[in-house]
Amino acid sequence: MANRLSEDDLIASIFAPLSGPGSLDLRDDAALLSPPPGHQIIATADALVAGVHFFPDDPADQIAQKSLRVNISDLSAKGADPWGYLLSLALPDNCSTDWLMSFAQGLKADGKTYGMSLLGGDTVRTPGPLMINVTALGLVPEGQMVQRTTAKVGDRIYVSGSIGDSALGLALRLNQIALSTEMKTEWQDHLLNSYLLPQPRQGLIAALRAHAHASMDVSDGLIGDLTKLLKVSQVSARVELARIPLSQAAAGLIALQDDLFDRAVTGGDDYEILCTVPPTQSAEFEQAAAAAKINVTYIGDVSAEQQAPVWIDRNGQAKIFAKASFSHF
Amino acid sequence: MANRLSEDDLIASIFAPLSGPGSLDLRDDAALLSPPPGHQIIATADALVAGVHFFPDDPADQIAQKSLRVNISDLSAKGADPWGYLLSLALPDNCSTDWLMSFAQGLKADGKTYGMSLLGGDTVRTPGPLMINVTALGLVPEGQMVQRTTAKVGDRIYVSGSIGDSALGLALRLNQIALSTEMKTEWQDHLLNSYLLPQPRQGLIAALRAHAHASMDVSDGLIGDLTKLLKVSQVSARVELARIPLSQAAAGLIALQDDLFDRAVTGGDDYEILCTVPPTQSAEFEQAAAAAKINVTYIGDVSAEQQAPVWIDRNGQAKIFAKASFSHF
Repeated sequence: MANRLSEDDLIASIFAPLSGPGSLDLRDDAALLSPPPGHQIIATADALVAGVHFFPDDPADQIAQKSLRVNISDLSAKGADPWGYLLSLALPDNCSTDWLMSFAQGLKADGKTYGMSLLGGDTVRTPGPLMINVTALGLVPEGQMVQRTTAKVGDRIYVSGSIGDSALGLALRLNQIALSTEMKTEWQDHLLNSYLLPQPRQGLIAALRAHAHASMDVSDGLIGDLTKLLKVSQVSARVELARIPLSQAAAGLIALQDDLFDRAVTGGDDYEILCTVPPTQSAEFEQAAAAAKINVTYIGDVSAEQQAPVWIDRNGQAKIFAKASFSHF
Repeated sequence: MANRLSEDDLIASIFAPLSGPGSLDLRDDAALLSPPPGHQIIATADALVAGVHFFPDDPADQIAQKSLRVNISDLSAKGADPWGYLLSLALPDNCSTDWLMSFAQGLKADGKTYGMSLLGGDTVRTPGPLMINVTALGLVPEGQMVQRTTAKVGDRIYVSGSIGDSALGLALRLNQIALSTEMKTEWQDHLLNSYLLPQPRQGLIAALRAHAHASMDVSDGLIGDLTKLLKVSQVSARVELARIPLSQAAAGLIALQDDLFDRAVTGGDDYEILCTVPPTQSAEFEQAAAAAKINVTYIGDVSAEQQAPVWIDRNGQAKIFAKASFSHF
């Protein structure tokens, strides 16, 4: 703990500047919050551990941003605007003040981008790896939370952006993909960056509130996460795997090595929106997404529950995935 | 991770039974909360790390209870009733399902005792020690939060219960106190139990709301915590050390080894209430505490800020503490 600020100094000098309304300037033990009239609160938490959810030598500001963004992604999927967050940090002894200042810079930048300030939290010492827990609070207009359990038979299944970039980025990072000269540098950069820094789909919040029956963010792999959503909604689905949106980079890599497709659609850390929209609303949903400059792709349809979801491959055959989800756990 | 439930199974079988209103049965990514009309939300977080905040071989149910109670203590000090909590758990690979079931039993018991149900959270794997983060939400009637920054000159300083039991319990646990035949077994049991299981002062909530100007819970040592409260309130104080309430066990130990007094008043984990009450309200505050069957002791007076707080010893001399606070950090 040499060269480390005391907890009080850390709060006053590094974290207090990130605090916002309700935080009481971090001079109290707790935050004081009043949701605006006509709103409900959405609360979610995500914990990240060095060596499990990020690499210990990732840039500190990007680790901070990732820990906020994975939570903002959850809020966005629920149709909630970010409101504030509590941050608990377990710091190993070798964590320097410079590292913490860079970490705080990342929080500050994203706090501004996403409209979310620090409300409180805790800082403790750990003999283990760095760990970050963010409990994020969001706001939805009364009754407009988009839940996970409310998909209906006949809904169209949409996914935002592209799937698998982050999982392939992680595989590259772990040297689990044999590099070849056909692999473009810009593909690698795109995939590695996707892993490092999620892009939560805040732009879809209004479209989800207005048009979606059910929604969640894709964090543990598309196949597994859709399976979960369908299960808790007591429905099933038929999905055409060829429709799953891939980036140029992911498609390029998969063209070279086709077993990477499974990794792309069952790997984690996409932080895209997976939602179901009734057919009567799908044109408006697509228009709203286009207006927000976010691609959404119709990948399949919700069916009555009689069986597990059916994944149709390019040959029209039902495919079985050996492992549907990525598990950090 | 052998013999470990998947995260989904863990949630469904072990944590869902602890969930309450707003949790959506833990089947969504987030909780949905609406504070009752006329109330504000108090939010606080405390993180506990095995080997830092508790012993890894402490009983799992009591570790769970401690992690809830340290947060309930914060809420109580603010005049807030417990409402719900989000739990993030980082589990090492050797954490068994039996351990988790016992942990959940502790949460269930205290959730019932204190009126607080599980709203959500996260479960992750860690290569390091077990870590628990609880983000607790409480409710106060509009405008009735008791803050830390609002002590006034002339206020009387009160502390609940007795001080130092937990710090001396920890010292015993660490074999840092030479055992002697004069040391009664019941003293040791009392002190060891105080360390293991805090008793948050929920019974004082109404008295604090009605009568206190400022309040916090004592978690990092009375001397250091009072110094913090006075500093953020921009006031000072004169405290008579002999008035600080000690249990029979702590007083007995200190009589045998008088340097333990400093440890008692600067050690951590008391989870008692430290508050300031105007003299005009002190009789009513004492009556309200007595009605709640909680001892409160008047230990000194708030003075105008001109100097650091003055600690008067038994000889009427000002005492200087080498170290005012215990720091887990």
